[in-house]
Amino acid sequence: MNTDYSSRIEALRAIMHEEGWDAVIITGSDPHGSEYPAERWKQVQWLTGFTGEAGDVVVTEDHAGLWTDTRYFIQAGFQLQGTGVELHKTRVPEQLLIPDWLAEHFKDADSIVVAVDGLAVNASFVYDELHGKLAANAIEHYIKSCPNLLERIWTNRPGIPQTPIFPIESGESRADKTEWLREWMTERDYDAVLLSSLDEIAWILNLRASDIEYNPYAISYLLISREEALWFVLKDRVEDPDSDKVLSDMEDVRLMRYDEVEESLNGFGKIRLFADKATVNYELAEFLSTAGIRTTFGTSPVALRKAVKNEFEIEGMRRAHILDGVAMEKFLYWLEKSMQSDKVISEWDAAVMLGRYRAELDGYLGDSFETISACGEGAALPHYSTPKTDAPLLKAEGLYLCDSGGQFECGTTDITRTVPLGPCTELEIEDYTLVLKGHIDLAMAVFPAGTPGCRIDALAREPLWKHRRNFGHGTGHGVGFCLGVHEGPQDIRQNMNSQPILPGMITSDEPGIYREGLFGVRHENLLLCVGAGENEFGSWLQFEPLTMCHFDTSILRTDLLTADETEWLNAYNSTVYETLAPLLPEEIAEWLRVKTMAIRANH
Amino acid sequence: MNTDYSSRIEALRAIMHEEGWDAVIITGSDPHGSEYPAERWKQVQWLTGFTGEAGDVVVTEDHAGLWTDTRYFIQAGFQLQGTGVELHKTRVPEQLLIPDWLAEHFKDADSIVVAVDGLAVNASFVYDELHGKLAANAIEHYIKSCPNLLERIWTNRPGIPQTPIFPIESGESRADKTEWLREWMTERDYDAVLLSSLDEIAWILNLRASDIEYNPYAISYLLISREEALWFVLKDRVEDPDSDKVLSDMEDVRLMRYDEVEESLNGFGKIRLFADKATVNYELAEFLSTAGIRTTFGTSPVALRKAVKNEFEIEGMRRAHILDGVAMEKFLYWLEKSMQSDKVISEWDAAVMLGRYRAELDGYLGDSFETISACGEGAALPHYSTPKTDAPLLKAEGLYLCDSGGQFECGTTDITRTVPLGPCTELEIEDYTLVLKGHIDLAMAVFPAGTPGCRIDALAREPLWKHRRNFGHGTGHGVGFCLGVHEGPQDIRQNMNSQPILPGMITSDEPGIYREGLFGVRHENLLLCVGAGENEFGSWLQFEPLTMCHFDTSILRTDLLTADETEWLNAYNSTVYETLAPLLPEEIAEWLRVKTMAIRANH
Repeated sequence: MNTDYSSRIEALRAIMHEEGWDAVIITGSDPHGSEYPAERWKQVQWLTGFTGEAGDVVVTEDHAGLWTDTRYFIQAGFQLQGTGVELHKTRVPEQLLIPDWLAEHFKDADSIVVAVDGLAVNASFVYDELHGKLAANAIEHYIKSCPNLLERIWTNRPGIPQTPIFPIESGESRADKTEWLREWMTERDYDAVLLSSLDEIAWILNLRASDIEYNPYAISYLLISREEALWFVLKDRVEDPDSDKVLSDMEDVRLMRYDEVEESLNGFGKIRLFADKATVNYELAEFLSTAGIRTTFGTSPVALRKAVKNEFEIEGMRRAHILDGVAMEKFLYWLEKSMQSDKVISEWDAAVMLGRYRAELDGYLGDSFETISACGEGAALPHYSTPKTDAPLLKAEGLYLCDSGGQFECGTTDITRTVPLGPCTELEIEDYTLVLKGHIDLAMAVFPAGTPGCRIDALAREPLWKHRRNFGHGTGHGVGFCLGVHEGPQDIRQNMNSQPILPGMITSDEPGIYREGLFGVRHENLLLCVGAGENEFGSWLQFEPLTMCHFDTSILRTDLLTADETEWLNAYNSTVYETLAPLLPEEIAEWLRVKTMAIRANH
Repeated sequence: MNTDYSSRIEALRAIMHEEGWDAVIITGSDPHGSEYPAERWKQVQWLTGFTGEAGDVVVTEDHAGLWTDTRYFIQAGFQLQGTGVELHKTRVPEQLLIPDWLAEHFKDADSIVVAVDGLAVNASFVYDELHGKLAANAIEHYIKSCPNLLERIWTNRPGIPQTPIFPIESGESRADKTEWLREWMTERDYDAVLLSSLDEIAWILNLRASDIEYNPYAISYLLISREEALWFVLKDRVEDPDSDKVLSDMEDVRLMRYDEVEESLNGFGKIRLFADKATVNYELAEFLSTAGIRTTFGTSPVALRKAVKNEFEIEGMRRAHILDGVAMEKFLYWLEKSMQSDKVISEWDAAVMLGRYRAELDGYLGDSFETISACGEGAALPHYSTPKTDAPLLKAEGLYLCDSGGQFECGTTDITRTVPLGPCTELEIEDYTLVLKGHIDLAMAVFPAGTPGCRIDALAREPLWKHRRNFGHGTGHGVGFCLGVHEGPQDIRQNMNSQPILPGMITSDEPGIYREGLFGVRHENLLLCVGAGENEFGSWLQFEPLTMCHFDTSILRTDLLTADETEWLNAYNSTVYETLAPLLPEEIAEWLRVKTMAIRANH
């Protein structure tokens, strides 16, 4: 029995009883709508024990439920055992999202009070989804914002992190970026823009920190008015900001305490403010509306501007991927030799070794996410978390999957390679080939300017679909420049995101096939969108692979590849060899030369 | 000078002046939101001379403009010469649609009156687009519904058509369809549904007529309440409905005068009514709101139900396509022999000959749209209208394109074949092959249940995109069962239509390439969506080609096709031969045997 968690939920129910709350919603986010929160905001984990990256909890008098998506069903089923928390599945056809569930659960109630930690939930969720659904079902309701409500029972809750801040080069000065945003707000008649999204703030300021694992951000708000920039970033450091060289050097940005954002906004009077409802939290949004600030909520222009990399960033990303490729090839060489020499290596050992090779690289700041190092059934989970203790041992057979990435001063990487550790089954070889075929078909795509990712997603899937196989995650996500390994606004997946893929955007290409209990395959490169000419039919775009690491051809079903696909694969592997060989020890370079020898089309 | 048209516009301006209207909008639609209107509602053509199938006109004191899309730019440019009417381009990136243009044109006006023929414009356009845009730009406005406003200057305007009504078999009785709709409305708590879309009415009643060219509909409204069905269809026939055997036999449907729909609705009192804003006209919608009827506007459920064909309809469509294939093969044989014997044949002559072959077929009711018969530069216009007089003569060289279809009691066809009339250029051969490759790639697709057409559109385009070629129209549209050759709700094009392609839906597959002034290529089959099994990855769907007519292989660049594509083409042509040969004269069957001989993959 997980009495820890069930007693925590009971303690929460005692508060609810005392306060007269009918339901409490605890989300897995932070005050900035971050995808990955700092320890302080891993509230779902603290309350239920569930450690997946996406999960929200609802507690009522007679029910406690966790909502999470396809990626985490198995993990949640395991982790919630004995907690009394029920799993509610999302991203499935019959899904009943939290607002739907509440509307159904309280359909006969006269009126209800729903409490949320207003700091840890974005305004859009409360206003549009929760309020919208309850109103549509004619349920009288009050959604109470209770900042840090769990602190009443969560003693020793971690504080707001505060790590050293450091500048980075991005090819465009802070002044230029601020000037661009001021032009944007002037055109639209706003007096100020409030940025809450941590990666947008890091981008505009050209500053990084390590407040969140894998994500080089400083937890803060940024207010840019026509005249000045106020950065709400100081926590206990407020007593002595001068001790920080970087901060004390910033003449163009006024440093403010993190907790004085509302007070400061109050001082501006009736300004016309722009903010993004998807990243501004409910507590702050409620404050804006009561303070009489004329706020317009819309989509932040920073996300799109940031996604289109400039020449400096593109060059940096190319460099970062060459560095990363050196680590990857050393790692794959080590792995192959280790398996041949019967070394005892666990999934965790392999992840550690890859981390070591990355740590040797210039400008390496850390990993860009937690390395997935998996063989067998672990690899069959698209979001497997490699256990530190008692990790499965690698056997000299079947496929091994490794999804990892690094943060570098000059860029961010994200790569998945699946390689044979020994003899593979026919099914493994076929899946391996079909996923690579899908990967190549997207990588080879040419498409007209204006095409959104959702319209080319099928190019990566059709080779799998033809064999009645598929994968449940997106094919591609945007990647930041020394920022989040996941960023918008573009993506390549089965959605209705109309954002075109623009030249300068960087997006992953990572189809897969997952065989529950058996094995998994995923092949991932990052692709840079580049121009491909113009003619009477319009402007054309294509992709340039940034990732530099060979694809293993030893277990390919070459008869499943077309001549074009084979040609692409040979050219790619050859480029990898030419690029990396001079940077590798002679012995590994020679190994790579053999690994990247052209294969023949076979029809 | 087209003084006719400019004097008509001046006459309209005189009325505007008299009435105090600042702008008049004349649309190309009818009271039922039809894609193709009867002569009476070809108001844009009467006013401006423009004969394209999509065009709307705005007249103000100092401007007259026609809005039409990419398909008609060349035609409109030609037809509007001397009329004083300016062309406004739509479906281009910089488009300024009518509401945008009006908002811009009247941005400094205190308040404006916009008159529309309330019968000839749908409610959604007025409420959502026009009112929405003017309101968003803070322009005070009144949108006046003036039914038949052009009649004050259009003497001899054609009346409302009234052609014989006839029943058809559809595999599901009128009673069953009505019962289904009643269940639908009961579940949603509506008292009645008002259908305005002519194809939906024809579908539910299992009745057809010929009020609109190519479209077997009777112009009418249908009101289905929980107890009865009222069909507002009688025009001058009202004096003696008993003379019509079909009408007098209908015991389950009360026949009403077409012009008494408002009066009749008034008699229902405060019912809860459902209607579709996209097909209910503005005049009627305004009446509903003033009459105090509690109307809910939404998407009619009939469109989706009708798009999913039942077994009877599918069998009928298969039969119709075999019949149609016989006519097509006779035509293509005749064409080839004629070119070989140096006969003088114009594009029009060819269209007439194809029409004759179709007219010989059992159950043929007429064409499903105007045949496009074109060589050279005519074929380069995706929506070319073959001229009746002085049509270009066919030469024994280059490509000939023919897009045509028939209405049969057992279904509707739509087919495009492009064939060589003699030696072709390398560019013609390459384009011919790439378009066929795109056609085949979509036809071969396998995809998971739930996939909308917009997600697989790229499969037909990528072979063209790779060679920096494209086409400006959709890849596929739905096709009715002895109904419109264009129907929704599904399609396969570059939009964000989330309607999944469902088993039983019939959609065209018609990629093309158009070389202005030179030639055009389009290859079109109709595809039936069918199941393709289930497994641990989900349910699978694929397409079955309904169209039965060989693709010419004599000018293929076989090196551009993959082995799979070649195999599909050989199998398709072989099926066409096996199916049609027994139905063709021996000489043509033998010719077809040679035409459909398997080609070899060439790599």
